[in-house]
Amino acid sequence: MERRIQNGDYILIVYDEIRRWLVQVKEGEAYHTNKGFIKFDDIIGKPLGVRTRTSKGHLFSIFTPTAADFLFKAVRQTQIIYPKDASFILITAGIGPGSRVVEAGSGSGGMTSVLAFYVQPTGKVYGYEINAEFLKKAQKNIARLGLEPFVEFKNKDVLTGIEEVDVDVVVLDLVTPWEVVPVAYSALKAAGIFVSFSPTVVQVEKTIEALRTHNFGDIRIYELLLRPWQLSRKREEVVIRPQTQMIGHTGFLTFARKMSLEPIESEEQNLEERPAGGADSGE
Amino acid sequence: MERRIQNGDYILIVYDEIRRWLVQVKEGEAYHTNKGFIKFDDIIGKPLGVRTRTSKGHLFSIFTPTAADFLFKAVRQTQIIYPKDASFILITAGIGPGSRVVEAGSGSGGMTSVLAFYVQPTGKVYGYEINAEFLKKAQKNIARLGLEPFVEFKNKDVLTGIEEVDVDVVVLDLVTPWEVVPVAYSALKAAGIFVSFSPTVVQVEKTIEALRTHNFGDIRIYELLLRPWQLSRKREEVVIRPQTQMIGHTGFLTFARKMSLEPIESEEQNLEERPAGGADSGE
Amino acid sequence: MERRIQNGDYILIVYDEIRRWLVQVKEGEAYHTNKGFIKFDDIIGKPLGVRTRTSKGHLFSIFTPTAADFLFKAVRQTQIIYPKDASFILITAGIGPGSRVVEAGSGSGGMTSVLAFYVQPTGKVYGYEINAEFLKKAQKNIARLGLEPFVEFKNKDVLTGIEEVDVDVVVLDLVTPWEVVPVAYSALKAAGIFVSFSPTVVQVEKTIEALRTHNFGDIRIYELLLRPWQLSRKREEVVIRPQTQMIGHTGFLTFARKMSLEPIESEEQNLEERPAGGADSGE
Amino acid sequence: MERRIQNGDYILIVYDEIRRWLVQVKEGEAYHTNKGFIKFDDIIGKPLGVRTRTSKGHLFSIFTPTAADFLFKAVRQTQIIYPKDASFILITAGIGPGSRVVEAGSGSGGMTSVLAFYVQPTGKVYGYEINAEFLKKAQKNIARLGLEPFVEFKNKDVLTGIEEVDVDVVVLDLVTPWEVVPVAYSALKAAGIFVSFSPTVVQVEKTIEALRTHNFGDIRIYELLLRPWQLSRKREEVVIRPQTQMIGHTGFLTFARKMSLEPIESEEQNLEERPAGGADSGE
Repeated sequence: MERRIQNGDYILIVYDEIRRWLVQVKEGEAYHTNKGFIKFDDIIGKPLGVRTRTSKGHLFSIFTPTAADFLFKAVRQTQIIYPKDASFILITAGIGPGSRVVEAGSGSGGMTSVLAFYVQPTGKVYGYEINAEFLKKAQKNIARLGLEPFVEFKNKDVLTGIEEVDVDVVVLDLVTPWEVVPVAYSALKAAGIFVSFSPTVVQVEKTIEALRTHNFGDIRIYELLLRPWQLSRKREEVVIRPQTQMIGHTGFLTFARKMSLEPIESEEQNLEERPAGGADSGE
Repeated sequence: MERRIQNGDYILIVYDEIRRWLVQVKEGEAYHTNKGFIKFDDIIGKPLGVRTRTSKGHLFSIFTPTAADFLFKAVRQTQIIYPKDASFILITAGIGPGSRVVEAGSGSGGMTSVLAFYVQPTGKVYGYEINAEFLKKAQKNIARLGLEPFVEFKNKDVLTGIEEVDVDVVVLDLVTPWEVVPVAYSALKAAGIFVSFSPTVVQVEKTIEALRTHNFGDIRIYELLLRPWQLSRKREEVVIRPQTQMIGHTGFLTFARKMSLEPIESEEQNLEERPAGGADSGE
Repeated sequence: MERRIQNGDYILIVYDEIRRWLVQVKEGEAYHTNKGFIKFDDIIGKPLGVRTRTSKGHLFSIFTPTAADFLFKAVRQTQIIYPKDASFILITAGIGPGSRVVEAGSGSGGMTSVLAFYVQPTGKVYGYEINAEFLKKAQKNIARLGLEPFVEFKNKDVLTGIEEVDVDVVVLDLVTPWEVVPVAYSALKAAGIFVSFSPTVVQVEKTIEALRTHNFGDIRIYELLLRPWQLSRKREEVVIRPQTQMIGHTGFLTFARKMSLEPIESEEQNLEERPAGGADSGE
Repeated sequence: MERRIQNGDYILIVYDEIRRWLVQVKEGEAYHTNKGFIKFDDIIGKPLGVRTRTSKGHLFSIFTPTAADFLFKAVRQTQIIYPKDASFILITAGIGPGSRVVEAGSGSGGMTSVLAFYVQPTGKVYGYEINAEFLKKAQKNIARLGLEPFVEFKNKDVLTGIEEVDVDVVVLDLVTPWEVVPVAYSALKAAGIFVSFSPTVVQVEKTIEALRTHNFGDIRIYELLLRPWQLSRKREEVVIRPQTQMIGHTGFLTFARKMSLEPIESEEQNLEERPAGGADSGE
């Protein structure tokens, strides 16, 4: 890991929580923002974590980008998947080193890159995207992150079938996820995990209906609200409070597990017996 | 991955979102719950994802536990870290394959196991825990998950110093995290990430004060609310709505990055210039 | 306003935020709780706001009940309407002194009593409730609060028609609110306000569909989350943080305004033009 | 209540949830918006609830303003108090017909007007505001709403003392509410209610400290999150989902009750005995 900033490095320039830029250091050039510009030559050779003033006198800090900065700064374009949702999907579906994951609706590769980063070094992400334009962008993004060995993109409609079998997880970011439920069932290994991200309740309702019809169990639905707090200084004190504006909604996360087709005596479910207001342990 | 259930397997038994148990299959034995018991012999040899009825007639589904089930079911005891918080820390701090992470306040190893799982195969978690009792439990938990190669526990007070240097991330789950800020600074690599999880606002305020004094930048504070929705059946329809009860608070997450000690012309910060209600991009 | 506690007074006994009781002082008797009992004779003649110890040594404070304590403590039984929802309905629908309000689904009178309290002295609440049992309870509750002059209960199905015309607001707390939309239209004055409280999204969707078909405009949907914080003492400091458990959902509030039947050139609405993520001013 | 629109009427013009204007009808004039203008002469004589197209072809609906529209549209200027907070204060403090309320930090009269509207016809609001400029604006706003009989403004610093005694409620919207706690105690009747609205946690902490020192009990802290949902049309269906952006924070609401000065045996409080995560009943 390089400690001194060099030509060609990717760096994260931070002004505050919102104004922050992931850029590549280019000798002899400058980086322009609405807070003024900085010359790359002024920071080359300086240690990471250095602060510098822009042409307008504002203070910028220069950091090594983390994986998260790369994943979420480098790639945002079509489907936006938020870190809070991506990470919760990752952990709840048990995706990790060695996982084999089918992703449909790859868009420009935001979620793909998160998945690819975390299935290393022995896992694989199979990314289905019908739009050739998006796919090209996704491939470029994955290449830039050096994650090609862990991704196999397919420019095809997932509805026509998933080529892989025995996969650990299927992750959908599609307008009509319920249509994909049968092919997801076929692709998944026994007890494999289905995940769908959808902005509207109607999508969730239809997906659940399809999951229940197609032999999925342990259906769980969540939404995550990320509430950023802000620092400000009042006289001598640093004062904190929640930010006035927040993102109130990104989407609903639906999880389910593949059940076997073994017959049981009666198809009656436990659904009605659930307590109306049962506190969930958050897991 | 074994498809048929065998003696010795770990399985997840699911009744609903709340009543679910991670257990080991033991030939000749039974598993008792308040919904009735099941005999392991009845499910040995059956495919994963199978459903079975308990002695009281309730329907249980039997699944392979995911990594998440192991991480959060196997280990809960002292400090409870929730999946929503653990995963957001993971991704925001950029922890992944190869990361070197110091964790202080390991408790019985909940967060440790998440970190260890995701730094595989080349990274390492250094877990500091002052309480020998907790540490023993943590070691046992990590062993059960087969993650020992990726964890090095230390039964010592992190305040007396962190032995590692050049680490990528320091993660704290302590009552007085602000006291650890100076040693965290020393242990971190240039531009390394500091993370602290704290239930109260006062803890956050003191930690921020310490971070600002000890040359950390890019301070960000978040809280995450996980809102579970529930399914119920009304006549023919499946109806969904948010659950009545939810966990309203676990803790605040504070992130910061190590800045270099290079002098700058004036120590004046950008703090006051921040927009009062700037919408955060969610990252 | 009586300052000294007298026999026959209603008082609010407070142990903490949760354990609090609205009771009537009865000479010679005692009030039993799981924190011990208090004898009414010990507090008769004492000033309001007095503290007293129970037989078990716990500290109870004795207060005058506020209107809110009466409204929400005296009446809770069938439909639970929460203060946060009741008050937001009140103010958003502009209900106040002199308002004429039709309420359907009165249950045991929780919302009725709030409405009646606030339409004083010249307004009126017309409460429709099909269940005679509930209605009796509601009447008793309203009587206890001394609000009979402001309420007229009707033991009939609102679907068969609303007898009043030219009312300011129609408030529904029904399982199938969409069926009532046409009769609500007839009962309302020009530009009058429709309000419906529903726990599920499907109910909201059907109600909106009916509202759009039956010439209502300015449709708005909200949910309110009340997050209680808690105090605790850490050494010398009082420390606050959000409570661990909270009520995550009560119901969705749908508001609409009656439009006139004047023809317009084209029925095309503005619906699609709305900004996808427009921040609402909260009103 | 006039059914046909007349010259001089106040009307609410609605385009959508955000773009809505409270204006006075002026014969011969037009009202200009960024969606085009409408001529008042085109709507004079039309029924309320009528729709009309602007010069740019957009559909505007014309409604009678509700009390809420007047209260929150007419008055917003300095301290913004949101309907969700104003109404929750109103009901939780039991403010209603006949209440005597002291308000400090009246600003331009937003909260004052809500209070005045609801204490009618026999109550009174005493509004303290140190800034003469704000006070003038507040007086004008109250006059426009016809609520002067229910308000008495005082251009003085509330810290120098509250002239009223035996008031039911004291409502503060100040930067340093903790300083006002002693004078609030003196002004309140026995068991009277203290309310404070504050944006930051530090303000709440200091206020609580002062309340505990000055013999207030039943201290409760809340925050309210209002989550607007949006309608959109997908093909034939009306689809709803939470809005992307929401107001994540306005302020914290602190409530307390005046306790008597009667001595008790020991000053030990119940504070530590409270359950860590007790679910609140929402009231």
